[in-house]
Amino acid sequence: MKKLLPVICAFLGGAAQAQNNDTTMLRNVATEVLKNGKAYDNLRFLCKQIGPRLSGSANAQKAVEATARMLQEAGADTVYMQPCMVPHWVRGDKEQATIRWNGKKQSLHVCALGGSVGTPSKGITAEVLEIQSFYELEKMNPADVKGKIVFFNYPMQPQLVNGGYGDAVRYRGGGPVAAAKLGAVAVMVRSVTHALDYNPHTGATRYADSVTKIPAMACSTKDAEWLDSLLKQEKGVKLYMKMNCQTLPDAPSFNVIGEIRGSEKPNEIITTGGHLDSWDLAEGAHDDGTGVMQSIEVIRAIKALGIKPKRTIRAVMFMNEENGTRGANKYAELAEQNKEHHIFAIESDEGGFGCVSIGLDGSAAQMAKVREWQPLFKPYGVLDMPGGGGGTDIAPLKKIGTMMASVNPGGQRYFDVHHAPNDVFENVNKRELELGAIAMASIALLVAEHGL
Amino acid sequence: MKKLLPVICAFLGGAAQAQNNDTTMLRNVATEVLKNGKAYDNLRFLCKQIGPRLSGSANAQKAVEATARMLQEAGADTVYMQPCMVPHWVRGDKEQATIRWNGKKQSLHVCALGGSVGTPSKGITAEVLEIQSFYELEKMNPADVKGKIVFFNYPMQPQLVNGGYGDAVRYRGGGPVAAAKLGAVAVMVRSVTHALDYNPHTGATRYADSVTKIPAMACSTKDAEWLDSLLKQEKGVKLYMKMNCQTLPDAPSFNVIGEIRGSEKPNEIITTGGHLDSWDLAEGAHDDGTGVMQSIEVIRAIKALGIKPKRTIRAVMFMNEENGTRGANKYAELAEQNKEHHIFAIESDEGGFGCVSIGLDGSAAQMAKVREWQPLFKPYGVLDMPGGGGGTDIAPLKKIGTMMASVNPGGQRYFDVHHAPNDVFENVNKRELELGAIAMASIALLVAEHGL
Repeated sequence: MKKLLPVICAFLGGAAQAQNNDTTMLRNVATEVLKNGKAYDNLRFLCKQIGPRLSGSANAQKAVEATARMLQEAGADTVYMQPCMVPHWVRGDKEQATIRWNGKKQSLHVCALGGSVGTPSKGITAEVLEIQSFYELEKMNPADVKGKIVFFNYPMQPQLVNGGYGDAVRYRGGGPVAAAKLGAVAVMVRSVTHALDYNPHTGATRYADSVTKIPAMACSTKDAEWLDSLLKQEKGVKLYMKMNCQTLPDAPSFNVIGEIRGSEKPNEIITTGGHLDSWDLAEGAHDDGTGVMQSIEVIRAIKALGIKPKRTIRAVMFMNEENGTRGANKYAELAEQNKEHHIFAIESDEGGFGCVSIGLDGSAAQMAKVREWQPLFKPYGVLDMPGGGGGTDIAPLKKIGTMMASVNPGGQRYFDVHHAPNDVFENVNKRELELGAIAMASIALLVAEHGL
Repeated sequence: MKKLLPVICAFLGGAAQAQNNDTTMLRNVATEVLKNGKAYDNLRFLCKQIGPRLSGSANAQKAVEATARMLQEAGADTVYMQPCMVPHWVRGDKEQATIRWNGKKQSLHVCALGGSVGTPSKGITAEVLEIQSFYELEKMNPADVKGKIVFFNYPMQPQLVNGGYGDAVRYRGGGPVAAAKLGAVAVMVRSVTHALDYNPHTGATRYADSVTKIPAMACSTKDAEWLDSLLKQEKGVKLYMKMNCQTLPDAPSFNVIGEIRGSEKPNEIITTGGHLDSWDLAEGAHDDGTGVMQSIEVIRAIKALGIKPKRTIRAVMFMNEENGTRGANKYAELAEQNKEHHIFAIESDEGGFGCVSIGLDGSAAQMAKVREWQPLFKPYGVLDMPGGGGGTDIAPLKKIGTMMASVNPGGQRYFDVHHAPNDVFENVNKRELELGAIAMASIALLVAEHGL
């Protein structure tokens, strides 16, 4: 016992000291970001000076160049780009949709779904068939669907606190194939949002090679409610819709990467990231300008504080999350090809509303190790580290054994603006944005310091 | 052992069953509030049909009547009012403030602080003395302060994640007395908010009987920044200010109470509450329309679900939190006088931004008991139960041994709108509001079921 005691004391002393150092490091990071943070100003530039930046667009290229410059200004040791080819879908003219019944007509607030084919140039006019669920559609007699426009009116379920999007987005993604299989000529889906307003929400839809590709649009939730009422009263209600969106040949684009090289184990790589592309209806402020700017802020804060992380930390602006994840695939492909050792990746792509928890996905040992740090995060609003972490852009790294994590914002505002015209800079709160950056920087630095 | 085992099994089985019942009860509450909640519509009425409702105003009386009706519609077993006398301060005409220097002038965005005396009818014109802190003021030579208007320009500190308000509000509360002691003729304080904009934020200030009462106003943060720059460049900068606010005789008002009588232990009382009065510059949406409507929703959801709580649950709309807490004092005074047994009270008065944690303040045994329920709350976004719970309106109950709690919203948006013209209905998110009500109803029901 006598011999052991000093060893135990030394060990405990060391552990306590490490804890103290970590506490100080996190406090310094938080103070730096909250006092001198650049994420908000950078986001303003991305939103107001560039704006919508769908993959393949001229604005997406401007965003590549702007964030490369921001990473340089943040002090990254190296800034580089990874070329990748991306889908290039264009919306074309403002879409039209008019409901006609009984000699009357009413125009709707609509937008084409991403990836949709256009209508013939004279548009499509057909009777509207309202469908509440895939289950209801499956029970239909194909003869009753053939030649109609299927109106999927499945509301995002209010009683689902967090799972409502995943549940409802199935109709946006899978509606066109399901309806076309039964002979429908087009599809209109209710926008995937809890908000009851006139904003149509876009987002990617899917086709299958073996099924006719029919045009697909979204209408606002208020239009969906109105149309539902009308259809309960009237028969033979028709929808005229016109869209000239189209898919052009793939275009060249880039992931943008800023890196701080690890001082002791530079080959162990930690990725922080968001996606640089956005839908074309608004500024992509919360989706995902905030994630991108939080990642750049990780680099800026570390350099501003003069911290020299033991392992390599990257901020990655992934291209093409919205309609292809080509950037994410390229990043993982190159990681594998270059035999990079990616130990940890965290993505922020659920809106810049602060961060109440950090989602984790790793081995039991990794989860246990990271969760030991959780008390360090409480002063900055991160109250939990549940399972289920990850993100679309970092997911392809999983096959090379990378631990996954995500910035989980609380609140319920994300889907009010998601993929809609109101996803603008004004809806981002500076301090909430910064607290997300603090969470990302803090966990990246802890992994850089202690490994996994 | 053989004898003990069935007992243990029965005990564990009972505990597991209770847990299951609680899980189901909370899920039912959440579903009811998220699907059929009335808090948002009720809040719209309070904000848009009534609006500002400072104690003693005609609008405050309208709010008393409206919430009594809402509680009746919510199905409360009894709805009653507790009379109390409240301070009656009136702002009077729109305040004026103009900076004059070097033959130039610039008007500022200002408002009188609550409780301030007015200026003489011709206003006050005096040289501006910028002071950054009480420490700086204390070091001043009184001759350099005498006859001047002290401009307290203490920003809410960005590095304080949650404590910034308490730190900065000291200047709003204590500035007039500190400055008057040294002979200042008036005070202007920087608004207590992180937001950099043109909204002046009001709020109560304090006087001391032994110190001259001097007029006190707040200016917007952008005005404060501008004036700070000007004062660095120019000498002899003067401020003209005019306010005709005044304190009238105390006025009669009411707390409004809706109650569900406990089915088994009606004498054990659980209070949920918010405050009904608001400052006069806006609609008092987040401060504290949301807390009031969440409390009414507690009653509505319980009655709609047909739950019969074992202990009595009240929703209390406290009057006069903003400038006197007379309603809160009256509630506690009557509780004591009537020998009511108040076991638990929870207040929502930090904005209706959802609820990421429930703050607690009770005995170690009480804290431990309530924290055992914490996992039940996670599906609804309540991730922690830290110490430090309570609220201004329930605080007077503490002396009769009541356990205190508070709805703690995450996010950083509250002080952007607090006491300012932008505290309006449009800045409240329906689901965040409802999640706060779910948290309140859930903890009230658990205490009603299991006691403390």
